[in-house]
Amino acid sequence: MVKSFADIEKAVLACERKFKIVVAGSHDAHVMDAVVQTCEKGLAEAILIGDKTKTEQILKKDCAVDFEFIDMSGDDAIANYACDLVVKGEADIPMKGIISTASFMRAVLNKERGFVPEGALISQATLFEWQGRFMVLSDCAINIAPQYEDKIKIINNAVKLAHKMGVTCPKVAVLAPLETVNPKIESSVHAAMLTMANKRGQIKGCVIDGPLALDNAISADAAWRKGIDSVVAGHADILIVPDLDAGNAFTKALTFFAGLKTAGTVNGTAVPVIMCSRTDSGDDKYHSVLAALMQCIGSVAP
Amino acid sequence: MVKSFADIEKAVLACERKFKIVVAGSHDAHVMDAVVQTCEKGLAEAILIGDKTKTEQILKKDCAVDFEFIDMSGDDAIANYACDLVVKGEADIPMKGIISTASFMRAVLNKERGFVPEGALISQATLFEWQGRFMVLSDCAINIAPQYEDKIKIINNAVKLAHKMGVTCPKVAVLAPLETVNPKIESSVHAAMLTMANKRGQIKGCVIDGPLALDNAISADAAWRKGIDSVVAGHADILIVPDLDAGNAFTKALTFFAGLKTAGTVNGTAVPVIMCSRTDSGDDKYHSVLAALMQCIGSVAP
Repeated sequence: MVKSFADIEKAVLACERKFKIVVAGSHDAHVMDAVVQTCEKGLAEAILIGDKTKTEQILKKDCAVDFEFIDMSGDDAIANYACDLVVKGEADIPMKGIISTASFMRAVLNKERGFVPEGALISQATLFEWQGRFMVLSDCAINIAPQYEDKIKIINNAVKLAHKMGVTCPKVAVLAPLETVNPKIESSVHAAMLTMANKRGQIKGCVIDGPLALDNAISADAAWRKGIDSVVAGHADILIVPDLDAGNAFTKALTFFAGLKTAGTVNGTAVPVIMCSRTDSGDDKYHSVLAALMQCIGSVAP
Repeated sequence: MVKSFADIEKAVLACERKFKIVVAGSHDAHVMDAVVQTCEKGLAEAILIGDKTKTEQILKKDCAVDFEFIDMSGDDAIANYACDLVVKGEADIPMKGIISTASFMRAVLNKERGFVPEGALISQATLFEWQGRFMVLSDCAINIAPQYEDKIKIINNAVKLAHKMGVTCPKVAVLAPLETVNPKIESSVHAAMLTMANKRGQIKGCVIDGPLALDNAISADAAWRKGIDSVVAGHADILIVPDLDAGNAFTKALTFFAGLKTAGTVNGTAVPVIMCSRTDSGDDKYHSVLAALMQCIGSVAP
């Protein structure tokens, strides 16, 4: 089981195959920070697509990596070229650089490329280190107001990510503002439905409990004080937020207030995809690269 | 201007008048931790209502405070008695102890007591220390899905709290998952409406900007990276969350992941009210007592 970004580095280095990242829009300092760090450590190779002059200005003179470069402009052109390289098998992981999210996602979601399996829902998860292990938080960036059926797919995507990290049966807490079912609070209704669907075998590979407030999900003491009897409460591996409003503020609080090490991941695609926010630091982006590489290698034994 | 809970202690001690807290349900260790600490420091006096035997078992033998005690059982009876003492002028601040939130709030909201002014909306705000100053986060505990008109009142309540702390014109960030207006994301629509209403003089005593994602609201660097031109971005004093789902996870992340010093406050009532969660620690509860006392004393000069 991997428990930290340092563990992922080791697991990736131990993997015989070296994967290739294709950077869509390389002319950005934070993006190149992450890519150079990845390649210098021998974790992966990279093809850069973007403004060559600007990118070379950003690359330090002592950069030991000899990148393959495609000089190109136009967000859509760059995004399509990057994704086509993956289709052709010349690269493994498309990474959004400084181009717009809309252009990048259009290229990724384009049906002809086959990156999105039939019936799949694309979701985002934040992977973060806390108390000597990883936790997964989803969805903080893609689905605005997921309904019950969407949340099943968001959970399945997050569970798959946890399985890749070696957590064989992740504990999933479905968050609401309180631990009781309240018909006026949709998140608590969804949580109850998802919990029972899991008990009835409709959602597999994990154990789900909710509604749980965040404190009940992660603190055994807080769960005990509320009299909650659950194997998930206090020990959650995966936190499912009610909607984008909640998820986005939550994941940013982890970075900006708690200063935790976080990685953004895109889930549900047939190939790993790296998509960071423009406001992510070089470190955040490097962690996101690590998370994507972890999804490339086989599951890590528990 | 008060910038920390230590500053509030000093301001309260400097105030000639000593205020009296009435504890509704004193038979709880964390509650008594906070109350004993408050009284031992000479910040306030307290009347305890609850199970006398249990409370005395909790009180340490070396407790130097000689409490006035009313031995009583039954959540509703305790809550009503506590609030009636405030109506009679025998106490200043009702504090929820170990009794149920429903009983306590029924007693506080009872129209005959006059604690809730005509047209007022009761909201909650979390006051927390960050980077050498206070920030206010609202509403994390009371209003489930506040609409536009409710959010105006939530902002007015939070602004009043900031004024009491000596922030003469607080900067209010209305949060959404992104900084652009998206008709599919209600929080971004509300944020735009609130910002313009503030510009047109419909909401006073503060400067509002939104939609802002959390990173843009609190990090000048993140705001700059998104090209946001705003006096609020990067410097917010008050964060207004979209709804209870977002606020509740956010405030709990501040406590459980970031380990910040936080206080829960009830806003919009004619008298300060102390209401903590059962899962709050003794320290959290003590901070909430301090925040209520700060609302009793006159505004702190900037």
